[in-house]
Amino acid sequence: MLVIAERINATRQGIRQALLARDEALIRKEAREQAAAGAAWLDVNAAADPVRELELMEWLLEVVQAEGKIPLAIDSASPAVIEAGLKRHRNGQALVNSITMETGRYEKMLPLVKEYGAAVIGLALDDRGIGKTAADRLQAVERMVEEVDRQRIPLSDLYVDPMVLTVSSDQGSGRLALEVLHQIKARWPEVKTTAGLSNVSFGLPGRPLLNRTFLAMLLAAGLDSAIVDPLDKKLMAAVRAAETLLGQDPYCGNYLKAFRAGWLES
Amino acid sequence: MLVIAERINATRQGIRQALLARDEALIRKEAREQAAAGAAWLDVNAAADPVRELELMEWLLEVVQAEGKIPLAIDSASPAVIEAGLKRHRNGQALVNSITMETGRYEKMLPLVKEYGAAVIGLALDDRGIGKTAADRLQAVERMVEEVDRQRIPLSDLYVDPMVLTVSSDQGSGRLALEVLHQIKARWPEVKTTAGLSNVSFGLPGRPLLNRTFLAMLLAAGLDSAIVDPLDKKLMAAVRAAETLLGQDPYCGNYLKAFRAGWLES
Repeated sequence: MLVIAERINATRQGIRQALLARDEALIRKEAREQAAAGAAWLDVNAAADPVRELELMEWLLEVVQAEGKIPLAIDSASPAVIEAGLKRHRNGQALVNSITMETGRYEKMLPLVKEYGAAVIGLALDDRGIGKTAADRLQAVERMVEEVDRQRIPLSDLYVDPMVLTVSSDQGSGRLALEVLHQIKARWPEVKTTAGLSNVSFGLPGRPLLNRTFLAMLLAAGLDSAIVDPLDKKLMAAVRAAETLLGQDPYCGNYLKAFRAGWLES
Repeated sequence: MLVIAERINATRQGIRQALLARDEALIRKEAREQAAAGAAWLDVNAAADPVRELELMEWLLEVVQAEGKIPLAIDSASPAVIEAGLKRHRNGQALVNSITMETGRYEKMLPLVKEYGAAVIGLALDDRGIGKTAADRLQAVERMVEEVDRQRIPLSDLYVDPMVLTVSSDQGSGRLALEVLHQIKARWPEVKTTAGLSNVSFGLPGRPLLNRTFLAMLLAAGLDSAIVDPLDKKLMAAVRAAETLLGQDPYCGNYLKAFRAGWLES
């Protein structure tokens, strides 16, 4: 599973303060630790202050890239901020986080994805919002796949998120996300998938347990990547276990390595 | 998930000794604790001594049924021992553990299942052994379903085990079991499923982690029951989490109850 490491996000209080105070050391530490824990991308979100998001993103890109060579997931609702990030990205292929099929959003974002040769996360929703049925969500994905293809972006650079909502308010939302994921993999084998995992447990106690249990189910259904905290040892232990169980870990090598490094509880 | 509680099994050293010493207190304690932990059936295996297995099973049945009213899974390779158990079973519907499609085994067992109105675990294997492909295993299941139906045993009383082998020697065996399970649920919706879980992790460290991660995947694929230790808190926490995530736990009631009782780690 490709890890999109979620910690450098201005919605976290410590990161917000670090951004506003230009605390380079703290940001670099987060980048270093997440990279060491096996991140494929480091997500960077600079929305600490709406007026200065662009300038903060530019600063953040420089700081994180000074620390290491891992590609970044540039995380913003603003096409201007995404573009500023892509312009300064030099760590290989960037990931744009994210587009939807809402009018006015993808039309601006996809040409940027194409221009900078980035990959892109696409949320399975459109102007009707997040579909309540698998068919509604797949309709949004179908249009997204068409648009991505029309822009001549390789489908293998699109990471679709089936949208995971909390089971506490709708008991069917876990099943629905699994079903949408399953259908995406069946209908568009080239398209990659991802998930913003932690919504599933919103409003319930024992959230880490729910999150890692659901991640194992998503991986069995074919999930390619997830937006997670790679410093969460129990979560990463579940990922290593799931990969070995699904035959994605030759000779159980990564699993055994994690075990020897003390990452796996029994 | 229906729990077939595995602890009263003569392959465990403590149980073997308790059987040979007729240690009623220890057996009753195991029965009581597993019942309190939510077992749907208590598995009873008396194979501590091949010559006296029948007599030990008769004793075991009386002791366990003196403790409580939970139905038993009568676990033996011997049709005579199964029959002795069924004859003495008075806690509702017994579960016969197990039949296969090997010649000479199911022909004796199925008429007993029918006569005593029991349910039965059927392992997905035949005279060719455990199939290496989903098609081979499903062929064994197909013949089993036909035989069960021919004996006029309700298909909903058959619990098919797709056979879970260790991923340490064959990396594909986890995926294969999931695929067989998926196909069984698709082709025979009435037929129930079960799994002897712990083989999956044989030969690897961190076995409980692998077992509970695989159980979450099996439950997402439709598993109805499993042969597990209900006193394993982390395993049962994963089960409660999986049930809530899959919409099988109205208002997350069992999950919240387990949390309040201190069964869930975070």
